[in-house]
Amino acid sequence: MSRTLKLTISYDGTRFVGWQRQAHGVSIQGLLEDTLARFEGGAVSVQGAGRTDAGVHALGQVASVQVTCEHTTDALARGVNACLPPDVRVTNVEEAAPDFHARFSARSKTYRYLFRNAPIVSPFERAFVWHVQEPLDLPAMRAAVDALVGTHDFSSFRSTGSDVIGAVRTVVQSEIHQHAGMLVPFVPTGGDHTLLVYEIGATGFLRHMVRAIAGTLVEIGRGRRAAASMATLLTRGSRAEAGATAPPHGLFLVRVDYD
Amino acid sequence: MSRTLKLTISYDGTRFVGWQRQAHGVSIQGLLEDTLARFEGGAVSVQGAGRTDAGVHALGQVASVQVTCEHTTDALARGVNACLPPDVRVTNVEEAAPDFHARFSARSKTYRYLFRNAPIVSPFERAFVWHVQEPLDLPAMRAAVDALVGTHDFSSFRSTGSDVIGAVRTVVQSEIHQHAGMLVPFVPTGGDHTLLVYEIGATGFLRHMVRAIAGTLVEIGRGRRAAASMATLLTRGSRAEAGATAPPHGLFLVRVDYD
Repeated sequence: MSRTLKLTISYDGTRFVGWQRQAHGVSIQGLLEDTLARFEGGAVSVQGAGRTDAGVHALGQVASVQVTCEHTTDALARGVNACLPPDVRVTNVEEAAPDFHARFSARSKTYRYLFRNAPIVSPFERAFVWHVQEPLDLPAMRAAVDALVGTHDFSSFRSTGSDVIGAVRTVVQSEIHQHAGMLVPFVPTGGDHTLLVYEIGATGFLRHMVRAIAGTLVEIGRGRRAAASMATLLTRGSRAEAGATAPPHGLFLVRVDYD
Repeated sequence: MSRTLKLTISYDGTRFVGWQRQAHGVSIQGLLEDTLARFEGGAVSVQGAGRTDAGVHALGQVASVQVTCEHTTDALARGVNACLPPDVRVTNVEEAAPDFHARFSARSKTYRYLFRNAPIVSPFERAFVWHVQEPLDLPAMRAAVDALVGTHDFSSFRSTGSDVIGAVRTVVQSEIHQHAGMLVPFVPTGGDHTLLVYEIGATGFLRHMVRAIAGTLVEIGRGRRAAASMATLLTRGSRAEAGATAPPHGLFLVRVDYD
């Protein structure tokens, strides 16, 4: 009998080609499919909620898979983790409704982008933050991210050459704040309150959307661009006018919400 | 004119052969000597306070070096960091007394060992904690580490084949506590309060001493060994009777104190 399972997955994206299976390189989807196939005794297809790019991390990626094997969810979680490399962990496995699909059933997804705004970045967080040395103007950045909340055409913040039709998405949360501590506690980095955390929740995301927003945000923080330009960009629909795409290693898929 | 400089250094020890320059592999000492030589215009000798093993990390290693170059301490810090790989950062450079020696002038050193006592370990902290799945008895571990404070012969906790004469050392601090948060905030690991932090300060350490203590401590925490055995081991002077050497990647040189 066929069962649908919902998996929650955390990974350090550093060495991967991204979520999606590719012709070359190691992908999270490929690792999960190959590992689950051992328990299923045959090929399986794993669908992720967010197709994270190469180098992007996940704290709570969600995936769905249909299997016929009779292992308990606990046994599968333990077994799969025993086979996976340590940079990918399945943090939960549960039974789902037969028609559950990690991507199509999702109500919203939340991403987080980390900026370390200090002269140096600790060796212990170098793979998880974008290091920006120039002082950033947090109030200007805050005003800019406020403008993103609501339903807008995000064409200015999508990768060029994207083949998905339509760029209208609804942002339900868009906030930036300073984090008081160190990313890794006990590790002095030469300055407190210098970790900036940007969090954005939306019903859907375009390819490179969060990274294009993060790149634009840093230009605003550095005073190269007015805070009001973020709102203007939403009406322009021109990727060329927005900021550069921020590096992938500061980005985390935090969680996926379902009804 | 010759100047003595005091450097404070933080490193992720994962890929290094340790502090000390070796015939093969990359060492922190080697990297620093090679980098400083470019600014000095000639060979320099960098002395570290603690000769950390391969895979051991440092938050506040201290090193001394004699140079004749006239760069300011700020210019040296910036220049050296620009040349070093991102897993090693010089967090401070300052002028020191001519006879300052990072190791011989040190009054005490503090090390920290991190244990993640949970079913799974987050991908984001896998390189910085020893993952122990079996439940650990914290009160028993606390009683055991209390016994280490004071002046003792630590022969039971030194690596075999060590050629240093004498094993008497004075431990000024030996404490274990639970850490409430995650090692990397925002990263759920399937259980709160499961990070155990052991901190030990001493006037000197023997080779592998903290790791031998950490290994013994886990055996006590798992109930394989009585808490009182830690005190007994101090009187036995037998490495074979103590626990296994804990893995290097849970260990951090935290700081070095001087008069």
